[in-house]
Amino acid sequence: MKFERIKSEGLAHLSYFIGSENEAIVIDPRRDCHVYAELARREGMNIKYIFETHRNEDYVIGSLELKKLTNAEIYHGHGVDFKYGNYVNEGQKVDFGSMRLTALHTPGHTDESMSYVLTDLDTGKEPVMVFTGDALFVGDTGRTDLYGPEKAPGLAANLYESIFNKILPLGDGVILCPAHGAGSVCGGAIAKRDYSTLGLERVQNPALQKTNREEFIKFKLEEQLDFPPYFKKMEQYNLQGPPLLQGLPVPKPLSPADFRKEMEKGAVVVDTRMPHSFGGAHIRNSYSIWLGGVPSFAGWFLPYNKPIILVLEEKEQLETAVRYLVRLGYDNIAGFLNGGISAWYMKALPADGLSFISVHDLKNKLEKQEEMTLLDVRKKKEWDEGHIQGAKNIYVGELEENLDKVSKDSQVIVYCDSSRRSNIAASILKKHGYNNVYNVLGSMTAWKNAGYDTVK
Amino acid sequence: MKFERIKSEGLAHLSYFIGSENEAIVIDPRRDCHVYAELARREGMNIKYIFETHRNEDYVIGSLELKKLTNAEIYHGHGVDFKYGNYVNEGQKVDFGSMRLTALHTPGHTDESMSYVLTDLDTGKEPVMVFTGDALFVGDTGRTDLYGPEKAPGLAANLYESIFNKILPLGDGVILCPAHGAGSVCGGAIAKRDYSTLGLERVQNPALQKTNREEFIKFKLEEQLDFPPYFKKMEQYNLQGPPLLQGLPVPKPLSPADFRKEMEKGAVVVDTRMPHSFGGAHIRNSYSIWLGGVPSFAGWFLPYNKPIILVLEEKEQLETAVRYLVRLGYDNIAGFLNGGISAWYMKALPADGLSFISVHDLKNKLEKQEEMTLLDVRKKKEWDEGHIQGAKNIYVGELEENLDKVSKDSQVIVYCDSSRRSNIAASILKKHGYNNVYNVLGSMTAWKNAGYDTVK
Amino acid sequence: MKFERIKSEGLAHLSYFIGSENEAIVIDPRRDCHVYAELARREGMNIKYIFETHRNEDYVIGSLELKKLTNAEIYHGHGVDFKYGNYVNEGQKVDFGSMRLTALHTPGHTDESMSYVLTDLDTGKEPVMVFTGDALFVGDTGRTDLYGPEKAPGLAANLYESIFNKILPLGDGVILCPAHGAGSVCGGAIAKRDYSTLGLERVQNPALQKTNREEFIKFKLEEQLDFPPYFKKMEQYNLQGPPLLQGLPVPKPLSPADFRKEMEKGAVVVDTRMPHSFGGAHIRNSYSIWLGGVPSFAGWFLPYNKPIILVLEEKEQLETAVRYLVRLGYDNIAGFLNGGISAWYMKALPADGLSFISVHDLKNKLEKQEEMTLLDVRKKKEWDEGHIQGAKNIYVGELEENLDKVSKDSQVIVYCDSSRRSNIAASILKKHGYNNVYNVLGSMTAWKNAGYDTVK
Amino acid sequence: MKFERIKSEGLAHLSYFIGSENEAIVIDPRRDCHVYAELARREGMNIKYIFETHRNEDYVIGSLELKKLTNAEIYHGHGVDFKYGNYVNEGQKVDFGSMRLTALHTPGHTDESMSYVLTDLDTGKEPVMVFTGDALFVGDTGRTDLYGPEKAPGLAANLYESIFNKILPLGDGVILCPAHGAGSVCGGAIAKRDYSTLGLERVQNPALQKTNREEFIKFKLEEQLDFPPYFKKMEQYNLQGPPLLQGLPVPKPLSPADFRKEMEKGAVVVDTRMPHSFGGAHIRNSYSIWLGGVPSFAGWFLPYNKPIILVLEEKEQLETAVRYLVRLGYDNIAGFLNGGISAWYMKALPADGLSFISVHDLKNKLEKQEEMTLLDVRKKKEWDEGHIQGAKNIYVGELEENLDKVSKDSQVIVYCDSSRRSNIAASILKKHGYNNVYNVLGSMTAWKNAGYDTVK
Repeated sequence: MKFERIKSEGLAHLSYFIGSENEAIVIDPRRDCHVYAELARREGMNIKYIFETHRNEDYVIGSLELKKLTNAEIYHGHGVDFKYGNYVNEGQKVDFGSMRLTALHTPGHTDESMSYVLTDLDTGKEPVMVFTGDALFVGDTGRTDLYGPEKAPGLAANLYESIFNKILPLGDGVILCPAHGAGSVCGGAIAKRDYSTLGLERVQNPALQKTNREEFIKFKLEEQLDFPPYFKKMEQYNLQGPPLLQGLPVPKPLSPADFRKEMEKGAVVVDTRMPHSFGGAHIRNSYSIWLGGVPSFAGWFLPYNKPIILVLEEKEQLETAVRYLVRLGYDNIAGFLNGGISAWYMKALPADGLSFISVHDLKNKLEKQEEMTLLDVRKKKEWDEGHIQGAKNIYVGELEENLDKVSKDSQVIVYCDSSRRSNIAASILKKHGYNNVYNVLGSMTAWKNAGYDTVK
Repeated sequence: MKFERIKSEGLAHLSYFIGSENEAIVIDPRRDCHVYAELARREGMNIKYIFETHRNEDYVIGSLELKKLTNAEIYHGHGVDFKYGNYVNEGQKVDFGSMRLTALHTPGHTDESMSYVLTDLDTGKEPVMVFTGDALFVGDTGRTDLYGPEKAPGLAANLYESIFNKILPLGDGVILCPAHGAGSVCGGAIAKRDYSTLGLERVQNPALQKTNREEFIKFKLEEQLDFPPYFKKMEQYNLQGPPLLQGLPVPKPLSPADFRKEMEKGAVVVDTRMPHSFGGAHIRNSYSIWLGGVPSFAGWFLPYNKPIILVLEEKEQLETAVRYLVRLGYDNIAGFLNGGISAWYMKALPADGLSFISVHDLKNKLEKQEEMTLLDVRKKKEWDEGHIQGAKNIYVGELEENLDKVSKDSQVIVYCDSSRRSNIAASILKKHGYNNVYNVLGSMTAWKNAGYDTVK
Repeated sequence: MKFERIKSEGLAHLSYFIGSENEAIVIDPRRDCHVYAELARREGMNIKYIFETHRNEDYVIGSLELKKLTNAEIYHGHGVDFKYGNYVNEGQKVDFGSMRLTALHTPGHTDESMSYVLTDLDTGKEPVMVFTGDALFVGDTGRTDLYGPEKAPGLAANLYESIFNKILPLGDGVILCPAHGAGSVCGGAIAKRDYSTLGLERVQNPALQKTNREEFIKFKLEEQLDFPPYFKKMEQYNLQGPPLLQGLPVPKPLSPADFRKEMEKGAVVVDTRMPHSFGGAHIRNSYSIWLGGVPSFAGWFLPYNKPIILVLEEKEQLETAVRYLVRLGYDNIAGFLNGGISAWYMKALPADGLSFISVHDLKNKLEKQEEMTLLDVRKKKEWDEGHIQGAKNIYVGELEENLDKVSKDSQVIVYCDSSRRSNIAASILKKHGYNNVYNVLGSMTAWKNAGYDTVK
Repeated sequence: MKFERIKSEGLAHLSYFIGSENEAIVIDPRRDCHVYAELARREGMNIKYIFETHRNEDYVIGSLELKKLTNAEIYHGHGVDFKYGNYVNEGQKVDFGSMRLTALHTPGHTDESMSYVLTDLDTGKEPVMVFTGDALFVGDTGRTDLYGPEKAPGLAANLYESIFNKILPLGDGVILCPAHGAGSVCGGAIAKRDYSTLGLERVQNPALQKTNREEFIKFKLEEQLDFPPYFKKMEQYNLQGPPLLQGLPVPKPLSPADFRKEMEKGAVVVDTRMPHSFGGAHIRNSYSIWLGGVPSFAGWFLPYNKPIILVLEEKEQLETAVRYLVRLGYDNIAGFLNGGISAWYMKALPADGLSFISVHDLKNKLEKQEEMTLLDVRKKKEWDEGHIQGAKNIYVGELEENLDKVSKDSQVIVYCDSSRRSNIAASILKKHGYNNVYNVLGSMTAWKNAGYDTVK
């Protein structure tokens, strides 16, 4: 048996390759799907089936792409009107090699959500693994708010049934294989450990400690999770079947002059460097989204109808940036600045800096009661757990439509937990004409490490 | 948390890298241990501790080598007189990052055998994983015959206690991480699947279905397992601490003339090609051990006091061959035949062939009652499950000291299950002057696929 | 300046990537052309132009494929009616970065043959390198027989002019960059060294020692070179523009049963293992062409209208085999035998052996005057330089249509220089019902190394 | 024949691997020498000889390291008292495969400088390549100032003899293989193109246009080249034989707290990020040397008796940084800041910024006649070719001992050609208590691109 958990960083998306003898299946493939075909090739296996646990909303599913490559058949659950692939029914069994996969309808996160139970026919009839999609995570459960607040109680009730009456009864010894790990927008409290079992979740997962259905529903309804605008695009893609890539796009290296031309023609500049590097020098009007943050934040800001051009720290980061963007459906990446930001400023083209402020200096300013807007761009939940006195909370993802709440008259000092999201915020403020903007180095983490007080 | 299961093919040895925050540990490292240091480097972690589950008998442990590379501390259990590292006590706890490892004395396979229980302090106090060494495998339990037949009942009793009263009580939901997978000489019936839990083993592992201690002991005493002669060397190495390699040896490419010189000076020739390639042409007096079989069979035949020289199918296989040999302590690899076997025969140097016979032709010969010795070189257990009528069973590993039982007067026809072990046997027979030797293509597998009868 | 000589093994085809600042060109790209795009990506360069030295006859040109990937413009010389790309004129200059390429019409090998002269504008006006295509090689000159014997004298005269009056006058210090290295079918005596200058060729190249045009023409007309049937296909492809691959085909792993089905449906089996491995066991009716020989010999035997299925020594060789085949336009590779030949014989499917004979045994047979056909399948030229007394010469490439000259009544013993081409021959004989076939191990090389006599 | 030019970036050092049949040689190996052994392994060759062209002064020679790995014999020229290896004599010939290397004494750069002439015995007696060490480069000749100004005229005279009477007479068609490419401190005007011939150099190399010995000597004496202090260490190492590494050092990942401890114990901090990233935030008292500048600038500033600790943009750059440092003999690399600079500031540890100024703002300041020290840290030669009015020239390598010439009372604005060397300078100024320091973004390149005037 060959078993591989393929983790897509940033999205914290987990997909699975399971092979036995010469046959293999893939569960929830990502769009840049050569990784599965390559595994199959190396193992001398044919990928026969692709299973989707549900119509994902946070990334473009790679099923069609992988089918194109391997001729595998695609299966998903009943409940939405998929324009491609086949439906799988409750209890349906599919064998490959000496393994058997049994479909289990586990709605709650969405109506069509399926789990898949793996049995090893060589060793017995008891389930060995369960692929739960977004129903059950390590330390968390799937969100139930995607259909809006009216439908949330019903979804939460469904999820309760799915988990307590379908998944957990499979047995404590079953290995849990969810669709996401820590950091996903599909769950707010997923554990950092990717390895668990139903037995461990039964006793350790906070949501599973709720002793009855009502408590569980109440718990779910209190969750506050992001709903970035690109979800709509993903849902549409994953229903219709997304456009085929057939290989990653290879953006062109652009000279500073050509880069500028693309800007003038309307391209959106995304600078994937770290805050401190962006701070030293950057191109005016660019979005600062550090590379690791692209999967989580690009979908809040970037339009689908304009080309994207990139400023990278190193040319070597291009492939990662491209993967991150196409996983969100941003296929039109027109190029990257060849030679990086220094090529730009060597041409004497207009470059900007961004000012940082240490937590110590911020403390000072606050004590001196300097006039300022102190902006906390973290999530409501983080804010609720403690923030700096005098701050105002606008979540980074919602900043652009709430600029009326931020005065241009005095300095704006932005923080998050690390200075990365606050750098996105700072870049947005600068795009919109704020000239006196500071990003707090180390932000809340440094603030706490310095021993300074927070309020709730 | 970073968790990696590193599998050494052939030995089917499993070692583990577990990291949390900036700290990592390794359990049962192999001797070619850059893989762990490289993982640590990539993750930005320091390997702080190395844990040995027991003094291994089937391979050279890499603890000292890895300590040299990383400065990590080595720990093993009480019970034998280790000349290096530290002892760990029952119940002793070691924290790294947000993980905790707790030592559990689980004798049975050997006296000093330890298991290590992993807890994730971030999610709770319940055990998440257990590293059982050679106590409990997926589908099997550790052998209890290493101290000889008199001590076997006592060891089996200890193992019963360790498994039923120490390991299983950790809970069904605990993930099982043993020291070996399918194919190891340390267990005869390990499952092909490397992933399991205590809950699954409790209901699926044949040995764990024994309802009481006596039955379990009886079951263990009936096991028949290999005891290749190199085990002695491994035990000595792993007690004293093996010689340091500091990088893999790089055997020299030898011209046919130089290769011949090495042979004349006493070097042992090991030909790692597949049977059909060895059959077409090979150097007289060489051992045929196909590459994948080196970890299991080299230790039966190769001496430690002579240099080894290699004939490979492809130069690219050199590194694998070298890894396989040094894992067994064969560090003196004097070179390989540059250009492979064709370089040899282009020089008109003496080359031999080996005759194959199809199962159909064998059937014919048997029906015609041709005079022959039909030699089945599989294990006693395989033989007991069914063999060809008229055959005689001598295990390949014991053939060289049982040649008096094989007449030189008539043709000798050798088979195993696949023709690989029988090719080793054929090469041994030819070394010892048997001229009329056939290897059965596809051997017992082909025989059965052809629909021919077997007897018990 | 970035300069890379990309060598395609087997074809001994040399292509070139030359980059300066952000711009690059490629000369004579091969069909599996990611190598150039990858180089450009790594260097941060755009490939602007693709130059063809001529319509190649020995492989599928990759210009269109690379244009698809990079948008580069394609240029070739006047003289044939290309259906794609642009024409370049004598003396035309193209600048990229600080480099300049100047076109030079150098007919002789073909009418449209161009050379390209590189100047480094940073250091001066003198030519630095010349890309001569098939006009001038290291140690040899391009063949002039492609248009048939009537036109050969005219082509040879043209080549004389091109070399002596156009290329050599560029200066002794110019670095020579030809389109082929040793082993190519486009030249019979190309040196093993790929690095030379016009000055070195002027004094060392045998063809360039001819003191006048007549001698040169005579010398060229005496050449005897292969003309494999696939040349016709290549010429047609390279005129029209070959079909686009967009990535290498990925043949499926086939189980023995599926492999057999493909055979029954008409697929051609190509076994790419070495002779000794093929000899041990192989599938009946397969062509034996060792992997390294595929580029030179597949085009003699394989049809374009049937699927090809492969037997490989190692799965890892699949990519190389596929590259070799698509470079010759064999795009329809239906699969490969998963698990190799041993998977086949483990199923008890019909496998054959092939007998080898050592040069010593052959000597013996000859001395005992055994009845036999002793077949030398080397080229006429090799034969003329010395062969074994009593042998008959039929070139391996022409054997299949000359089987009437080989009696089925007695044993057939085949040799070449190494036993590789003779193994192809032996496989062809066996396909055609010859049952008593031997391949001479080490062939002429071993024969000579054994000190045995040859005759002329 | 296998020929590989191995370029060590930064040092612009060229070494060569030449193999024929089963034998290979290496010329001027670098210290991290696995690259040669790996090449040999891949080609199935034995490295028999290592040739040094001279006792290098700009890097640690890898001969002993490679000998340790391969058992090859080391050769160098007479003239200095080497403590390892063998001497080679004028005219001595060494054969390997079908190649011959002939030694040629070519003093001038140093007394013991050798060139090595390669002949291909397969094709003729004429030289094919010449390995000239630091005697003759593409576009330049070796420096003759290493023994001090008194001895320079004599060395220059020797070099004249070596080039004009020994090397050039080998013939125009000989391929030139020097020990350095563009960017080396061993030559000021080496061409960007690495490929040349003696014929090309004869007409294009500026130094070779000097029509007689006197002119040539005069030309050489006018050269102004760096003499970084680490040269002394290199000379000593390369005479005695440097310490053996046996694998690259693997610096430890250090937490911010541990990093700080190392600083307190005296470790020197080297920050290898680009200026704009260093500018955003950095650790006080660190040297800023961008990664690509380490080979050229570390030797000016870093002591040999203190441990070095690194701040990197990406963990992936560690290996490159380590290679660069050990090539200069800095073996004591105690660790690197795990998590990079953001780990540092998240701990609220003291971080600094550095201010940049655009060329436009600098122009403005100059026009407004603001008080400032405008510091040009380029080489004298660059300064002579044009600088900004009002600037003062102190070469970056000599800044630390000339700080008395830079007032602390007013702002200091630093520039070079790109802002990289000026960033080193700025970091030095800040270490020494200058608080009002600006680095000019894009420096002289941007200044010229903006169309602003320079003076001479």
